[in-house]
Amino acid sequence: MTDQLLNDRDVRFQLYEMLDTQSLLQRPRYAEHDLGVFDATLETARTLAQQYYAPHNQKGDANEPTFDGAKVHLIPETKVAWDAFAEAGFLAAHHDYDDGGLQLPEVVLRACMAYFNAANIATVGYSFLSIAAANLIKSFASAELRERFLPPMLAGRFSGTMAMTEPGQGSALGDLRTSAKPAADGTYRISGSKMFISGGDHELTDNIVHMVLARLEGAPAGVKGISLFLVPKFLVNADGSLGARNDVALAGLLHKMGYRNTTSTVLSFGEKDGAVGYLVGEANHGLAYMFQMMNEARVGVGLGAASLGYQSFVHALDYARQRPQGRLPGNKDPHSPQVRIIEHADVRRMLLQQKVYAEGSLSLCLYASSLVEDSHTAADAIQRREAAELLDLLTPVVKSWPSRYGLLASEIGVQVLGGSGYTREYMLEQLYRDNRLNPIHEGTEGIQAIDLLGRKLGPRGGDGYGLFLSKVHKAVAEATQDCNCVLLATALRSALRIVERLTADMQQLVAAKPDIGLSNATVFLDVFSKLVLGWNWLCQAQVASRALRAGASGSEADFYRGKLQAARYFMDWELAGLEGQARLLSTTNRICFDMRDSWF
Amino acid sequence: MTDQLLNDRDVRFQLYEMLDTQSLLQRPRYAEHDLGVFDATLETARTLAQQYYAPHNQKGDANEPTFDGAKVHLIPETKVAWDAFAEAGFLAAHHDYDDGGLQLPEVVLRACMAYFNAANIATVGYSFLSIAAANLIKSFASAELRERFLPPMLAGRFSGTMAMTEPGQGSALGDLRTSAKPAADGTYRISGSKMFISGGDHELTDNIVHMVLARLEGAPAGVKGISLFLVPKFLVNADGSLGARNDVALAGLLHKMGYRNTTSTVLSFGEKDGAVGYLVGEANHGLAYMFQMMNEARVGVGLGAASLGYQSFVHALDYARQRPQGRLPGNKDPHSPQVRIIEHADVRRMLLQQKVYAEGSLSLCLYASSLVEDSHTAADAIQRREAAELLDLLTPVVKSWPSRYGLLASEIGVQVLGGSGYTREYMLEQLYRDNRLNPIHEGTEGIQAIDLLGRKLGPRGGDGYGLFLSKVHKAVAEATQDCNCVLLATALRSALRIVERLTADMQQLVAAKPDIGLSNATVFLDVFSKLVLGWNWLCQAQVASRALRAGASGSEADFYRGKLQAARYFMDWELAGLEGQARLLSTTNRICFDMRDSWF
Repeated sequence: MTDQLLNDRDVRFQLYEMLDTQSLLQRPRYAEHDLGVFDATLETARTLAQQYYAPHNQKGDANEPTFDGAKVHLIPETKVAWDAFAEAGFLAAHHDYDDGGLQLPEVVLRACMAYFNAANIATVGYSFLSIAAANLIKSFASAELRERFLPPMLAGRFSGTMAMTEPGQGSALGDLRTSAKPAADGTYRISGSKMFISGGDHELTDNIVHMVLARLEGAPAGVKGISLFLVPKFLVNADGSLGARNDVALAGLLHKMGYRNTTSTVLSFGEKDGAVGYLVGEANHGLAYMFQMMNEARVGVGLGAASLGYQSFVHALDYARQRPQGRLPGNKDPHSPQVRIIEHADVRRMLLQQKVYAEGSLSLCLYASSLVEDSHTAADAIQRREAAELLDLLTPVVKSWPSRYGLLASEIGVQVLGGSGYTREYMLEQLYRDNRLNPIHEGTEGIQAIDLLGRKLGPRGGDGYGLFLSKVHKAVAEATQDCNCVLLATALRSALRIVERLTADMQQLVAAKPDIGLSNATVFLDVFSKLVLGWNWLCQAQVASRALRAGASGSEADFYRGKLQAARYFMDWELAGLEGQARLLSTTNRICFDMRDSWF
Repeated sequence: MTDQLLNDRDVRFQLYEMLDTQSLLQRPRYAEHDLGVFDATLETARTLAQQYYAPHNQKGDANEPTFDGAKVHLIPETKVAWDAFAEAGFLAAHHDYDDGGLQLPEVVLRACMAYFNAANIATVGYSFLSIAAANLIKSFASAELRERFLPPMLAGRFSGTMAMTEPGQGSALGDLRTSAKPAADGTYRISGSKMFISGGDHELTDNIVHMVLARLEGAPAGVKGISLFLVPKFLVNADGSLGARNDVALAGLLHKMGYRNTTSTVLSFGEKDGAVGYLVGEANHGLAYMFQMMNEARVGVGLGAASLGYQSFVHALDYARQRPQGRLPGNKDPHSPQVRIIEHADVRRMLLQQKVYAEGSLSLCLYASSLVEDSHTAADAIQRREAAELLDLLTPVVKSWPSRYGLLASEIGVQVLGGSGYTREYMLEQLYRDNRLNPIHEGTEGIQAIDLLGRKLGPRGGDGYGLFLSKVHKAVAEATQDCNCVLLATALRSALRIVERLTADMQQLVAAKPDIGLSNATVFLDVFSKLVLGWNWLCQAQVASRALRAGASGSEADFYRGKLQAARYFMDWELAGLEGQARLLSTTNRICFDMRDSWF
């Protein structure tokens, strides 16, 4: 079995050829860096991932966390990995020098995370959540809370969680019931039950900082009455030392299909006197704050799914190159030698499918990370605003397309290995099980679909859609000038027309009849995402074509030819059903809407 | 959680409304039966499945078989279930009265098996394989072997396996190396290694009868030099008592993603002096014999996948009917009560998708079982021949469509439950893991595709295709007369034209350039299968429409309306991408074929 995590050549291609990551060095924030720093950081991530994460990926799956009634036990390699990650500075990597950070660009950090994800997504889950919780504190908490909680979080002594979901409410956050009562000292007492809280308890860190959504007494019903609280596992004294255990109890561990080394917990807040909580930002603005974290987490989930799909592709490709079996259909001579299974066209079809899903997903998520970066650090305000609006539009696609198709890349990987893929001797079945979470958490696929069609493409959706269309039109026009890409451009132009017309139809319908208009939103999300990914692959092909024309040779030329072939595959195969799907949607198909409970 | 296995009303619909199972009573073989016997047998299967199989399904998954170096240990419930199955007569159900059987029609037995599969496919795996091995012995072994081995197999004292695959050869049977050497006493000595042998060792039965493919010394290379041998775990004396342990050793258990309570084994034959084996039928005809068993097993795998997909649908539907969450998009009032998630159109879309996959798969597999029945017991020779030819054509579809789409039904079930679906508290994640095997074993999807396009639709493919086309044409013509079905008929007619034209193109191409022609066979299989299932759903809709016109009311009317709506869903949604796929295939897309190893 290979120990390769991603295709390093492709990571460089994405960062430096598709994106212009080197140009970030011209921004004042990154003036002290050079390309060597970016590359060395990527190399550190890859090395740590291979050394501390990958080796216990299967062990963590086979020996999931246990709770003895007092403490949660993880396999010891988890703590070693957490420490290595923290010591290398990754928990604080994108923070300011003044806060102990490395001022690393978002997109470089995310590329690093892709290596860790590919190596062991369950162990890196603790870091992923801690980074997100720290970002939330940094953005919205008071100076006092920031000073007390951020330094130990960035140093890896405290970890973080996001505590939103409750047993009775699921995805509908407006119905959450956890309550917050003001105490005399300006803090609050939190009471309620939270479920599916990843990293909700463990002994990796001295303390765990829960970012909890709750409802102040007398707050309005629904999403407008939700506030955000910081609720630590242990209280923290003014000098930073740990105080008493807070009234947060682990009610139980959930046992999952995959992602097993990440604890998934049910937490009880306030079984005794109420858990001490600190209001973050203003009362009743909690959901808006949480959405900053959630949007970041959605890009992160997309990247996680991309990384697992990518790792599945790497393993399947390695197997297909080694395993001899059978002969080509035209060869009836039983005395001729067996061929490696990559020689079978059907196996190459599966590998190509994996390649477009894996590399397309990674590319899309790094692009989204570059938009996060630009929205914060681009030189002029228009650029920053445009990046933010494009990111806003694309977030549901960035979350859901890699989740659906990265998962499919994992599933296809099982199939490439056949019977071996079904055994636990190989990584594929675990990668598949791990990846199955991604279409569910941080907003299911159905929720992303309603977010895209009902909100992002709705009347208050901002300029993201217009910006996106102009980018696709521009890419198509440019690619038409390139003989390697002209057929790809033609295919994408036709998809673009279909999606433009369909989107206009759907927008009208949603405005007139929201329940019917949104009833097929998930299929619309798939159609819209295909245009996004088609655009992505057209851009990848253009870069490859330019490099080939510039004289790339040898393995470099092979790499670029692979990109061109994958783009051709995407346009022909992945877009094949687009017209049919769009026709179905544009005629307002009511079959699902009209189906009745009693008819099932 | 529900303890329902299948929708009993739908099983009756399939057996008595879609199929004319009652007409079997007119055949001499079934003259002593009546409908009450069929129904009582189904009821017994359902009861035994609920009582002895379902309760330990999760336990068997969590406590997979272990090998202590001497014996394999299974959880004790496995043996209780095996005994209950055997005592109720299911191992011998379709055999003659004279052989201790019940002379039960194939299609009724298969409907019974669907209940067992839905309850616990891993435990019923031992029975599935034993039934198949016994059929093979009955068809091809000498009278002496039949007398010695069949009675204890039918009574459940011996079990059976099929031992084909080897570590170095995988699906390419022509390359198998296990050897057979004639001994002085007319028996053979078998030496070699077999892998992925399900049920290859355990203590459920006194003996295990392995049906082993091996190569006689000096036999021709490839598939024409394969013979079939009966190799028992313990030798059996002439009086039926057990003799010495044969030279068959368990080299190890394989650890799987699912199906865990079925042992998957590596077996070593002849590590000492060679395992005693008995030639079954003629030398070098082994593959043809095995293919009888394999074709039967392929229908059985399709049915297993259908049953798991069905059980996933049943669980997801039950959950969606109970779980309150959120409100419809048009309702912005946070004080209004939550709705059950089945009220969300996107959840209904997922459930409808599950319904067409689950019920369509079950319907297809029972239809195939009725063809097996007709090929043996139909009154006239033409009917028997036609049933055999249709079955021959459709077997790759019957194996692969339920495997792909039944699996998808399981996967969607996970999504319907959201976070809960990802936990092991609910059945969905296990059903998914169990079902993931089905696109792999008994010939992967890619192998089924080559079988359909290269063989069944090839020049020596028989009349199955012509018969199939005439049946679809007839159904379309009839449905056009029915106002409930005319739109469905129109949709299917258009699919029929597309597939007819495409098939002709592909046949030409395969004849001219087999390697290129077969390179996209898997996609062709999917397209062709959609026509088969479209035909199936058109027929289901016609039956439902007739029943509604005849005055069905109340829950009966609801049931039939559900069938009509599901058929509409199939035609609109599942056939939406057909034209695009067919266009792609008919232009001989060479993208996968031309992709090179070095470009990946």
